[in-house]
Amino acid sequence: MTNSSRTVAIIGAGVIGGGWAARFLLHGWDVRIFDPGADVERQADEILDNARRSLPGLYDVPLPDEGELSWCDSIASAVEAADWIQESVPERLDAKHAAIRAIHAASRPDAILASSTSGFRPSELSPAGDDVPLVVAHPYNPVYLLPLVELVPHAKTATAVVERAEILLSSVGMKSVRLKKEIDAHIGDRLLESLWREALWLVKDDYATTAEIDDIIRFSFGIRWAQMGLFETYRIAGGEAGMKHFIAQFAPALGWPWSRLTDVPELDDDLTEKIAAQSDEQSGRYSIRELEGKRDANLVALMRALKGQRWGVGEFLNRFDRNLAQSETDVVEPIVSFEVVAPSSWCDPHGFVLETAYRHLVDQALDKFLTTVGCDDDYQRTGFGFWVTDTTIRRTDDARVGKTLRVVSRAIERVDQKIHVVCEIVVGARVIATDERSLAHVHLATREIAELPDTLRLTLDAAVRRHRRLPRGD
Amino acid sequence: MTNSSRTVAIIGAGVIGGGWAARFLLHGWDVRIFDPGADVERQADEILDNARRSLPGLYDVPLPDEGELSWCDSIASAVEAADWIQESVPERLDAKHAAIRAIHAASRPDAILASSTSGFRPSELSPAGDDVPLVVAHPYNPVYLLPLVELVPHAKTATAVVERAEILLSSVGMKSVRLKKEIDAHIGDRLLESLWREALWLVKDDYATTAEIDDIIRFSFGIRWAQMGLFETYRIAGGEAGMKHFIAQFAPALGWPWSRLTDVPELDDDLTEKIAAQSDEQSGRYSIRELEGKRDANLVALMRALKGQRWGVGEFLNRFDRNLAQSETDVVEPIVSFEVVAPSSWCDPHGFVLETAYRHLVDQALDKFLTTVGCDDDYQRTGFGFWVTDTTIRRTDDARVGKTLRVVSRAIERVDQKIHVVCEIVVGARVIATDERSLAHVHLATREIAELPDTLRLTLDAAVRRHRRLPRGD
Repeated sequence: MTNSSRTVAIIGAGVIGGGWAARFLLHGWDVRIFDPGADVERQADEILDNARRSLPGLYDVPLPDEGELSWCDSIASAVEAADWIQESVPERLDAKHAAIRAIHAASRPDAILASSTSGFRPSELSPAGDDVPLVVAHPYNPVYLLPLVELVPHAKTATAVVERAEILLSSVGMKSVRLKKEIDAHIGDRLLESLWREALWLVKDDYATTAEIDDIIRFSFGIRWAQMGLFETYRIAGGEAGMKHFIAQFAPALGWPWSRLTDVPELDDDLTEKIAAQSDEQSGRYSIRELEGKRDANLVALMRALKGQRWGVGEFLNRFDRNLAQSETDVVEPIVSFEVVAPSSWCDPHGFVLETAYRHLVDQALDKFLTTVGCDDDYQRTGFGFWVTDTTIRRTDDARVGKTLRVVSRAIERVDQKIHVVCEIVVGARVIATDERSLAHVHLATREIAELPDTLRLTLDAAVRRHRRLPRGD
Repeated sequence: MTNSSRTVAIIGAGVIGGGWAARFLLHGWDVRIFDPGADVERQADEILDNARRSLPGLYDVPLPDEGELSWCDSIASAVEAADWIQESVPERLDAKHAAIRAIHAASRPDAILASSTSGFRPSELSPAGDDVPLVVAHPYNPVYLLPLVELVPHAKTATAVVERAEILLSSVGMKSVRLKKEIDAHIGDRLLESLWREALWLVKDDYATTAEIDDIIRFSFGIRWAQMGLFETYRIAGGEAGMKHFIAQFAPALGWPWSRLTDVPELDDDLTEKIAAQSDEQSGRYSIRELEGKRDANLVALMRALKGQRWGVGEFLNRFDRNLAQSETDVVEPIVSFEVVAPSSWCDPHGFVLETAYRHLVDQALDKFLTTVGCDDDYQRTGFGFWVTDTTIRRTDDARVGKTLRVVSRAIERVDQKIHVVCEIVVGARVIATDERSLAHVHLATREIAELPDTLRLTLDAAVRRHRRLPRGD
C-alpha cells in the first residue's frame, strides 16, 4: 500500500483540520493547506508535533515516508491537484457554503469533497442550486489517533465515490461507519450531546463538580466503552436471559425522571463561570500542551492494550499493520521487521527509550520472522509452533525519543528441532542492543519437542545459509 | 493492610451482588450470602470464577488469602456478625424496604448498611418511620473489576460512618465518589440514561444498528473516556483559548434539535424485537460467558495500560499496589516481590502463561528490589539510578492459567558500580524460569557510569552478603 503519489487539500486548519493534515501527512500523503487565520501555522505545527510523537507508536510496522506539506494562499491553489479535499471551516452554514462553492469550482471532477461538519447534514451543506456530490466525513479529536469517521453521503454522491472514500480513509488508518440516512449531528455527537446536556444540569444544580463527573466516567463506563459499546455491554448485563430480559428489566426506568431530558440548560455567564472555575481547579495545573501529551500517550497505550487482546480497535490496528507489512518480507534477506519512530509513550522521563520497548520490538520481529518462514497462524492452528527457551540481551547504547529504531533479524543456526535467531536494534548506523533467542519447535498444547516438518525445515535451513553470510551490524 | 477478620453480608446475589461477593472474598473478607433465588448459587460461582481469572491480573502484588464463603438461609444469619452489609435485591421499592427492615433488625449497631440501588435515593430506601442510617454504595458491572462506587449517605447517617465506609471500600480496591446531595439515579446512571434514550431513538428510527452505535462509541469517545472524562476532554478541545471558549463555541448547538431530548421512546414489542435481533446479529456468535471473558481480559489490559501511564484508574491501582506491598519488604531476605495468580489475559490459547508476563513480573521485582535498597523515586529524582546492561533468561518449564507465580529475587554480586541480580519464577516448588540481569549505576540524563553513594553501596553489600548464603530454588 503506497500513498506516496496522493494529495489531500485541507481547507481550514484548526484543531480538526490540523489533525486531518497530520494524519494524511504521516501516512505518506502530500498535504496542501489553506487557512487564512492568524497564528494557524504555529498551531498546526504543534498538532503535527503531537502526531509525530504519538501516532507511530500505534503501529508495529513502519509508516511510509512523510509526504510534503505546503501552505497555499487560496482555496483554488490548494485543491486543484487534490485527490481528497477535507473542509473543516467554522461550523456556520454561510462559511461552509462559501468554502464548498470555491472548492467545487476549482477541484478535479474525480476529487472527493469531504466535510468535517459535526452538525450539518449533507443536503444542507450543498449550496442551494448546486447539488455538490460531497460526503460528510466526521472524525473525532485527536484526528491523528482516533480511527473513527462517520461517513454520510449527499443524495447526489454516487455509490462508487462513497466506496472509494472508504478505501482512501482506510489507507490512512481510519474506520468508516457509513450512515444509512442523514440526520442532524450524525450519531456520535447526538449521543455526546444528550450526555453533555445532562452533565451541565448536574454541575449547574451542584450535584457534582466537573472533576467528580469526569472521575465517575473514567473509573466506570468509560473503561467499558473503550472495548464494548452500549448495547454489547448491556447484553452481558442481561446475563443468560439475554437482551430482551435486560430491556424488560430496565424499560420502566425510561419513563422515570432520571435525567433532565425535557429541559435545555441555559449556558449563561453564571454557569459558564462555574464550569470554567471547576475545570481550572481540576486540570489547571497542566497546560493544554501537557494535557494533549498525556491524552495522546494514554490513547496509544489503551489502543495497544486492545491490540494485545485482538479486540475492537486493537484488532482493527492489527489488520492495518498486516496490510502495511504485506509485500515487505523476503525470507533470505535479513528481516527488517520494524522501523519505528520511538514515541514518547516508550520513553523514560529523561527521553530515553525504555528496555521494555526493545523487547516488544524483538517479540514482533520474531513473530514476523516465524510467519515469513511459514510458522504463521494457520500453521499454529495445526498444534505446532516455537517456544523460546533462552534469551540473551546485551545493551551497549541508548536511543532517544523521536529516533528511528530498526530491528534486523538473522537466523544463525538450526540444530535438530531448535533454531537460534539474533535480533539487532539499530539507530542510524549504531547497534544499540542485541537480543539472541533459542527457540524449540514444540507441540503447543504440551510443550513437548516436535519434529520439524520438511517444508519448514528446508525454509529455515535456506534462511540460515543466507543469513550467516551477512555481515553483523556491530 | 489485612482484611482477614472482616465479614461482609451479601443480600441478593445476582450479577451485582455476586460481583460484590467476589470482590470482597478475593480481598480477604469472609462472605455470607443470602439469596433464596433458584440457580443463584451456580451463577454466583460463575461470577467468582470470572473474578479469580481476571482480578489478580490488575495488581502487581499478591492479594491476601481468600476469605470464607458461606450461603445462609436467612437475612438474620447472614448479617448478624457482619461489618458491612451490601443489599442488592431487585430494583423495586417494596423489595428494598422489606430487605432493609430485616437487615436493620438483625445487624450489629456498628455495621454499615449499604445499598447497590441504581435508581432510589437514600431517603426513599429507608422504610417509613425508620430513619435507617444507610448509605447508597452504587457500583458498576463487573463489580470485581471496575473500581467506582457512588456513595450517597442518608441524612441520618453520621459523617464518621461515611468516612469509615470510604476506608473499607478503599481496602477492597474501590474508589468512592461521595455525592453532596441525593438525586434519583445518582450521577453515572443519569448520564447513561440520557445517552441510552438517544441510542434507542436512533435504532428505532433506523439511523443506525446496535453494532454501528457500539462501533461509533468504542472507536472514538469510548477510548477517550477511559482516561479523561467529558470536561477534561472538552477543555483540551477548546485549545489554548480554554474552557470558556469551548462553551461559547458549542453553546448554540445545545438549543438545536441534536437529540430527541423532549421525547421518551416507547420500548414496545417492535423495538424490543428489533434491538434483540440486531444484538444477536452483532454478538450472538459468543455466549454470555465468552463475552464476559473477553470483556474482563480487555478491562484488565486497559487498566494495566493506564498503570503504565500512571494516569487515572491506572495511578489509582498503582497506589493500591503500594499500600498492599507496605510492611512486606525486608532487604536481607530474598525479595518475594510478586505472588500473582496468572490471569487469562496473560495466557496463550493453550492456557500457558506468555513469556511477556514473566518479563513483566521480573521488571516489577527489580523495581521493588531497587526501591527496597534505597534507589526509589526520590533517589531517582536526584538524577541517578540503575541501567540494565545484560539480561539472560532461561525457561525450563511452563505455568498454566490460574497457577500462582512467585518471583524470588537475589542480589548475587557487586563489582564497582555494577550489581548482578537473579530472579527466579517459581510455581509451587518448581523454578520454571530464571532471569539474571546486570545493572550499572548511572547518571540518568547521560547514561554515564556514576559512583555509588556510601549508603546505597553499604545496603547493597549487606543484601549481597545475605543473599549469597541462601540456597537457590533450582
